[in-house]
Amino acid sequence: MQVYLDNSATTRPIPETVEAMNACMLDAFYNPSALYAPAMQAERALADARRVIAASLQANEKNVIFTSGGTESDNLAIFGLLAMQREKGDVLYTAAEHAAVKNACLEAEKRLGMTAREIPLLPNGSVDLSALREMLSENTRLICVMQVCNETGVIMPISDICALRDELAEKAAIHVDGVQGYLRVPFSFKQLKVQSYALSAHKFHGPKGVGALVIRDGVRIQPQMAGGGQQNDLRSGTENTYAIAGMRAAVEHYPADAMQHMLKLKQLLLNQLAEALPETTVLGLPADDAHSAGHILNVAFPPVRAETLLHALEADGVLVGTGSACSSKKGKHSSVLKAMGQKPNVMEAAIRISLCPFNTEEEMRFTAEKIIEKVTMLRKFVRR
Amino acid sequence: MQVYLDNSATTRPIPETVEAMNACMLDAFYNPSALYAPAMQAERALADARRVIAASLQANEKNVIFTSGGTESDNLAIFGLLAMQREKGDVLYTAAEHAAVKNACLEAEKRLGMTAREIPLLPNGSVDLSALREMLSENTRLICVMQVCNETGVIMPISDICALRDELAEKAAIHVDGVQGYLRVPFSFKQLKVQSYALSAHKFHGPKGVGALVIRDGVRIQPQMAGGGQQNDLRSGTENTYAIAGMRAAVEHYPADAMQHMLKLKQLLLNQLAEALPETTVLGLPADDAHSAGHILNVAFPPVRAETLLHALEADGVLVGTGSACSSKKGKHSSVLKAMGQKPNVMEAAIRISLCPFNTEEEMRFTAEKIIEKVTMLRKFVRR
Repeated sequence: MQVYLDNSATTRPIPETVEAMNACMLDAFYNPSALYAPAMQAERALADARRVIAASLQANEKNVIFTSGGTESDNLAIFGLLAMQREKGDVLYTAAEHAAVKNACLEAEKRLGMTAREIPLLPNGSVDLSALREMLSENTRLICVMQVCNETGVIMPISDICALRDELAEKAAIHVDGVQGYLRVPFSFKQLKVQSYALSAHKFHGPKGVGALVIRDGVRIQPQMAGGGQQNDLRSGTENTYAIAGMRAAVEHYPADAMQHMLKLKQLLLNQLAEALPETTVLGLPADDAHSAGHILNVAFPPVRAETLLHALEADGVLVGTGSACSSKKGKHSSVLKAMGQKPNVMEAAIRISLCPFNTEEEMRFTAEKIIEKVTMLRKFVRR
Repeated sequence: MQVYLDNSATTRPIPETVEAMNACMLDAFYNPSALYAPAMQAERALADARRVIAASLQANEKNVIFTSGGTESDNLAIFGLLAMQREKGDVLYTAAEHAAVKNACLEAEKRLGMTAREIPLLPNGSVDLSALREMLSENTRLICVMQVCNETGVIMPISDICALRDELAEKAAIHVDGVQGYLRVPFSFKQLKVQSYALSAHKFHGPKGVGALVIRDGVRIQPQMAGGGQQNDLRSGTENTYAIAGMRAAVEHYPADAMQHMLKLKQLLLNQLAEALPETTVLGLPADDAHSAGHILNVAFPPVRAETLLHALEADGVLVGTGSACSSKKGKHSSVLKAMGQKPNVMEAAIRISLCPFNTEEEMRFTAEKIIEKVTMLRKFVRR
């Protein structure tokens, strides 16, 4: 039995994704810019995906820009929005941001003369709104905030951040990295006055290598890739019609009750762990908090080190992660957990369990059993 | 019967491409950065592709950077190489370059303070080497040249350009856009001292949305996408393992005798056309010139307009292109044909017939027959 619980690193494509890609490769391989009628099929694949994604975010179809994934979407938003600002100024990002956002903001210092500043976190992993209030000014050009933290599952207070921006920093754009939130936590351009929203298909059972940046009506961004002028000149390069068709299928087939289901599974798992292992430490908001997303559980069993536990669980077919997959090979302390004020022994013990809508109660019971068994065994060993 | 002759716009994925992608999606969907053993399968997919592509260009495996396609590869090369130059200076590109190269060079003026200058073409579509000689100096930072012109099929004199660079502009890097040449025309980093080479999988029966930039040993480039530091920090973003596996399959299965076969077909087609339609005008080098690639034929039958002929042929299942697909919807004169000094009536009549290794003699005979029929009919109509 394999239980895959590293869905925030990447997800398994659902059959509908694979089928949509295959159909597009077989029947609609044409270049969507070609002039003959069969190429219309390829163009239609793009239009269909645009419509489905726009509808899911209450956005305008013409504002969906297809990219090669979350990293490109975040980079396009940050450099694209900032290039349109006439004056230099502050670029703020929360200390929980993914490297694709944080490093792009730091790069904007070098390339565009902006000043990148990190918004601190509360010990529970959410944004420190009082600190943000102090940082905002008419000098603020951009605020970057993720919808859901990939490490802790904390749902960020975007509507509060929008309100603070309106009050104190009206020149600032807001970019939301929705990579870990899209489809799982509702988002609407009608409700939240943010300027852009990034998503990545392989985080919700779509293909790798494709994502989108969705922008607000009237927002202008500078394209980052120069070339043939595809996508209304906003993103040059032949559109990846196959993966875009796959992404559309993944959006259409994402279960409507996903978050409810995952919240239930997370609670089930956590209850079993807490009962058997009293020192279970949850990093982030408590699982029953309204701002705790159901699909991510960051939990530590010190002094058992995360990597040791990960490999012990792997031996029994349970696959979990440690922090962001993107930086997991670098062996550093998580900067997110550090910003939450966690101690080294807890940070070194933190594993990330991330669910998908297709996980089952049976898998949760199996996982709980295995974690309890391995932690108990390893603790004896560590303490010896 | 459909005869697809727009392979320079995009190609149909071969079954091996589709199978490799499906296998990767099914069995190796893991994030290649994850720490557990199954993720090694995903990492292996990357390593295999790197090895196969490096071997095909006599390059070093560690110098293969996967991108989202030709446009990103060209942009990464141009901005990435120029960012490493300490001094501002000239960026040269041939007048035949694809928009992904030309527009990136123009953008480098704005972003990096370089001076972009266009290298003129000869009437036969090749680079004007005497003009280039005059343009080169110790002030030259970068020379961009395509391996094969996507509009005329002219194979560019890269080794002559390397020699001129060595003689007159030793500080200049050379970037080769190999999108229309890769696998079809031999290229070796051992024989040509260029700094980088761009390729795109969907031009050789691989998937869309994936390509590579291959750099010379010791060449340093600045990454253009900030993020998780994948690919030795040179290109952040979760690797598109599915498409990369598909690209590898397409490279491995590209027929060794492709160019010979396509040259023969092109000659067959051209002979039939020239016999029946004496005013057949070939744009670019004559088909029997050693620098004329076998897979692209740019031909005009004035006064029949290209778009009219394209749609007339389409009605009988023959799909051809007009210039670069990327700009074919903009309805302007081709800047390449203009740089060759072609007259408006010829430019407006030029169609591009681009072959793949899987085209057949029967398809060529059918195409010749249809072109002759349509041109004869349309000429009567036009001249009435």
